Amino acid sequence: MTIDPIERLVAELGRLPGIGERTATRLAFHIIRTSRARREGSLARDLAAALEAVAEHVGLCERCNNLSTDVRCRICNDSRRDTGLVCVVEAVQDLRAVEATESYKGLYHVLHGALAPLDGVGPDELRIEDLVRRVQEGSVREVILATNADVEGDATALYVAERVKPFVVKVTRLASGIPLGGELEYLDQATLGRALVERRAY
Amino acid sequence: MTIDPIERLVAELGRLPGIGERTATRLAFHIIRTSRARREGSLARDLAAALEAVAEHVGLCERCNNLSTDVRCRICNDSRRDTGLVCVVEAVQDLRAVEATESYKGLYHVLHGALAPLDGVGPDELRIEDLVRRVQEGSVREVILATNADVEGDATALYVAERVKPFVVKVTRLASGIPLGGELEYLDQATLGRALVERRAY
Repeated sequence: MTIDPIERLVAELGRLPGIGERTATRLAFHIIRTSRARREGSLARDLAAALEAVAEHVGLCERCNNLSTDVRCRICNDSRRDTGLVCVVEAVQDLRAVEATESYKGLYHVLHGALAPLDGVGPDELRIEDLVRRVQEGSVREVILATNADVEGDATALYVAERVKPFVVKVTRLASGIPLGGELEYLDQATLGRALVERRAY
Repeated sequence: MTIDPIERLVAELGRLPGIGERTATRLAFHIIRTSRARREGSLARDLAAALEAVAEHVGLCERCNNLSTDVRCRICNDSRRDTGLVCVVEAVQDLRAVEATESYKGLYHVLHGALAPLDGVGPDELRIEDLVRRVQEGSVREVILATNADVEGDATALYVAERVKPFVVKVTRLASGIPLGGELEYLDQATLGRALVERRAY
């Protein structure tokens, strides 16, 4: 017996994070409704083509592990970037967040995760050795650790710092503290505590 | 210049209802992450195939306008259903909701919308003439109006009732009132008011 195409679409949509069966059904019906007319711009066909293109063409940059359609990503290929700076992030989304600040002109290194021993993620599961090889080549003068400011991110930063220190002049970590516009009254204790510990001379 | 496949996927996902740019980006990255390995079960390829299948095979039942992969839908093709009963619903989702009660064994008619003159939806935009033709054929004895219990649904029910009355023995409307388990204290005024007006002999 063949599977009903509608049930199949609902099942596939349900594999997306945060999409339960109800939402998947709603999305499926929307897709079917806007695609039945078979006119130009059918959502079903456009989305299918976009998914195929991603599956076909998107891989990892051989240098920094950013997503890329070429062997090297757009950032690594950009000759105006400072190749002496490497910003280490957990995920491609974090790279994008740093890029969005428009205040960083160096390169990146995407680890694709953070150390989480309880979940079975050790150093071998992350792209740390790639980074060590990069800094061993000698052109990197500063490694900026931009992992998340949580337990896993801190542990990862500490581990990576130890590994790269012998080969670079400087290893830095993003500052933590009160977010801009943050009011002390409403701040969580951990952030305020950290801001106190890391207070700087005025 | 070719469009970046990742941006393209984000844009297509953003066409789904209730999916903003942020969620679309999150979904796209999840899809890419789970599809890069190119192993069996790549979400990108599976979802693309499911979308293609829907675009290719799903159409409307020629009799009741339910979604169907055949000329007639599963319900219309089921010889155990009572062909003398037609339940009129606004959308395929509503048909599914009625089916889920497992207490209805007649046929359906999907209007694909409700009258909404302010949004430019008049009788010609709905599948009302199909229904009139069905009842004119003479085998339908009761039309059950199961449109939503809101202004548009009520107006649609009223209009459809007038059109089919000459050809059927009975035209009925779903009861409105207090939902099962509903507590009067927390019920909205409109529902409680309707429950009072439509009170029945005990």
